[in-house]
Amino acid sequence: MQAEIITIGDEILIGQVVDTNSAWIGQKLNHIGISVKQISSISDDRNDILSTLRAAVNRADLVIITGGLGPTKDDITKKTLADYFEVGFKRDEGTLEQVKTLFERFKAPLLPVNIAQADVPENCLVLPNKNGTAPGMWFEDEDKLIISLPGVPFEMKYLMEEEVIPRIQQQFKLPYIVHLTMLTAGIGESFLAEKISAIEDILPKHIKLAYLPKLGQVRLRLSAHGTDKIALENEVNLIASEIKKLIAPYLISDTDIPIEKVILDFMEKKNLKLAIAESCTGGYLAHQITQHPGCSSVFAGSAVAYSYDMKESMLDVKHETLTQHGAVSAEVVEEMARGVINRYQADYSVSISGIAGPDGGMPEKPVGTVWIAVANKTKTLSRKFQFGNKRKENIERSAISALIMLHKLLKEDYA
Amino acid sequence: MQAEIITIGDEILIGQVVDTNSAWIGQKLNHIGISVKQISSISDDRNDILSTLRAAVNRADLVIITGGLGPTKDDITKKTLADYFEVGFKRDEGTLEQVKTLFERFKAPLLPVNIAQADVPENCLVLPNKNGTAPGMWFEDEDKLIISLPGVPFEMKYLMEEEVIPRIQQQFKLPYIVHLTMLTAGIGESFLAEKISAIEDILPKHIKLAYLPKLGQVRLRLSAHGTDKIALENEVNLIASEIKKLIAPYLISDTDIPIEKVILDFMEKKNLKLAIAESCTGGYLAHQITQHPGCSSVFAGSAVAYSYDMKESMLDVKHETLTQHGAVSAEVVEEMARGVINRYQADYSVSISGIAGPDGGMPEKPVGTVWIAVANKTKTLSRKFQFGNKRKENIERSAISALIMLHKLLKEDYA
Repeated sequence: MQAEIITIGDEILIGQVVDTNSAWIGQKLNHIGISVKQISSISDDRNDILSTLRAAVNRADLVIITGGLGPTKDDITKKTLADYFEVGFKRDEGTLEQVKTLFERFKAPLLPVNIAQADVPENCLVLPNKNGTAPGMWFEDEDKLIISLPGVPFEMKYLMEEEVIPRIQQQFKLPYIVHLTMLTAGIGESFLAEKISAIEDILPKHIKLAYLPKLGQVRLRLSAHGTDKIALENEVNLIASEIKKLIAPYLISDTDIPIEKVILDFMEKKNLKLAIAESCTGGYLAHQITQHPGCSSVFAGSAVAYSYDMKESMLDVKHETLTQHGAVSAEVVEEMARGVINRYQADYSVSISGIAGPDGGMPEKPVGTVWIAVANKTKTLSRKFQFGNKRKENIERSAISALIMLHKLLKEDYA
Repeated sequence: MQAEIITIGDEILIGQVVDTNSAWIGQKLNHIGISVKQISSISDDRNDILSTLRAAVNRADLVIITGGLGPTKDDITKKTLADYFEVGFKRDEGTLEQVKTLFERFKAPLLPVNIAQADVPENCLVLPNKNGTAPGMWFEDEDKLIISLPGVPFEMKYLMEEEVIPRIQQQFKLPYIVHLTMLTAGIGESFLAEKISAIEDILPKHIKLAYLPKLGQVRLRLSAHGTDKIALENEVNLIASEIKKLIAPYLISDTDIPIEKVILDFMEKKNLKLAIAESCTGGYLAHQITQHPGCSSVFAGSAVAYSYDMKESMLDVKHETLTQHGAVSAEVVEEMARGVINRYQADYSVSISGIAGPDGGMPEKPVGTVWIAVANKTKTLSRKFQFGNKRKENIERSAISALIMLHKLLKEDYA
């Protein structure tokens, strides 16, 4: 079964919001064995919606549309879908109740545009939206399935998880898609390819290998399509185990989890505590870690210390060290790492201090200069990195580099 | 001039990476008066690339393609473009030099696949990629312009900024697109629409109004197309000023900047310092603030205190307060806010403590319960929020709510 996703909204085309819905939907569909053939983002324009929908329906069995279902005048998806199917509207009493309930809860007066949200094309099955006022709509047209969902991510996600996925699984017999992803660090894409070229050359046609490079890491992804789930998994696992032998020194994980989660899982198993001291990454590294549920069993906390004062008072960095070597130096990150590990009685610590930019560079320390230290109870290691002049990338690269250093130290300590 | 963007890569379709390139390119094109008609994400598949490119070239004058230019076997964009134009390959000596230089710098041996990156379709103009080994390629075909760029964001961005945008501006006379965005908080989309419906009803055809709701905020965007830049700006500004009168109590900003930047700019002007104490948001709020260059003149730092211990030692929360009321309580967030403002001699502080989930809820404090406090030198205000059960959304909503509370307090203090 092949699907396409259409996201509707000018805000995506002018780049005001990033379309995160499509990736999320793509993941969910893949997990139930539906491959996404194309994602199209288009404007809130009647003709564009009609022609894109027609093209998608021609290519795919399932089309999921998000966006354009709000109560305001710029949202025209529902009206356009009625035109596409050449049907009129019906009032959905369940939706009307939901709208009324939500407005009562917020003690807000019910406006005609809100009531109109309960009017849906005659031929649709309504998917009740517990989180908002725009319902999902399920259309069956000959052998094609077209589903329209609100663009607000948490409303869309709720409807996908509670309504769309269960209904699709019930209605269709789906093939299997097996993905296996390995995370590597410390080796470039082409060197990785060179190492595993013998395997890549003899891959069967139904198995694809992809390289996904990102900020000092490369993820290797095997994807296999077929009907026999167990055979497919065995086949993929066998190929993966051959690949793993060839790339062992660079392998961070053989499942598709980010490096900080690999570290959290390992430290949790070993009952270890982590503390962080951040300057130029400004909370980003702590955020990467704390986005994962259950991190509190490992993560003690982070001191985001921007100023000299805070580095001294929060992290016990000596005033002389700061004045003699500057905040971006081996000496300061090492004191930050020791300060935070001692103060919070952690087993491991990471510290980062650098010039994220775009300003603040000096001749001997240009923008992108970052010092990172990792420490265990007895040892502190520091390293200098020279990144570019983009603030966001410098922050992300610093955090990833710190995690790679920490992963290496843990690997050595528990070899 | 109308453009389309095609992003190539299975990783986007299976949802392993979010396509952020398209939004970025959309923004850049809009700023020079080119509107993006469609964004299509497709697989590394020859037929899909060919048919999508043909469809895009039919609809638009300019097509920008990203991705599929790596040295590995899954990347087939370059080969497919040569097929599309029915041309052979030429070796680009400049690219070969660049590849050699990069490999020398990294002290890595040059592989045949890397050398092959210097081979490009005969009919292309090479756009040198200073940040990587895959060059950009500029194709002119009858009256259409097709540009192929690497998918790695910082390589793509470099090529867009240094090569693509300047060349397009030189070669074409472009119309103007004026966007004006206003940020509101504390009012729902339909109430906002009700307040400004009189204006919306009489908007001229070349001006569009869009509502972009996101986590407790709604952005209102006016977009106007035309040829006379000054007249267009005047017209949009006039409409905006009428709208602003009607929504004054909810207006956070009349430019398209996020709320934390509004706060940073205001606090910088008033020479005020901000300190943060985070528990459940785990560094996310600090990261939101520190992603902005120059934040160090306002932002002192953040204590990301996950455990009771750290709340006591980093933020002077009293042990009894924690044991009597629990970490998620008015009392604790208020002590956190006072602790961090005093300790770091800030003028304002924000503190957050909650249950981000998905686990850790209790009957009287279910997942999604979040307490937030804001403080100035003399006053502390706290408020309880009840969000849902999604960790990521709870973190984001908590941070936004804290910023809205801080903005309100600043507005009152400096009314």
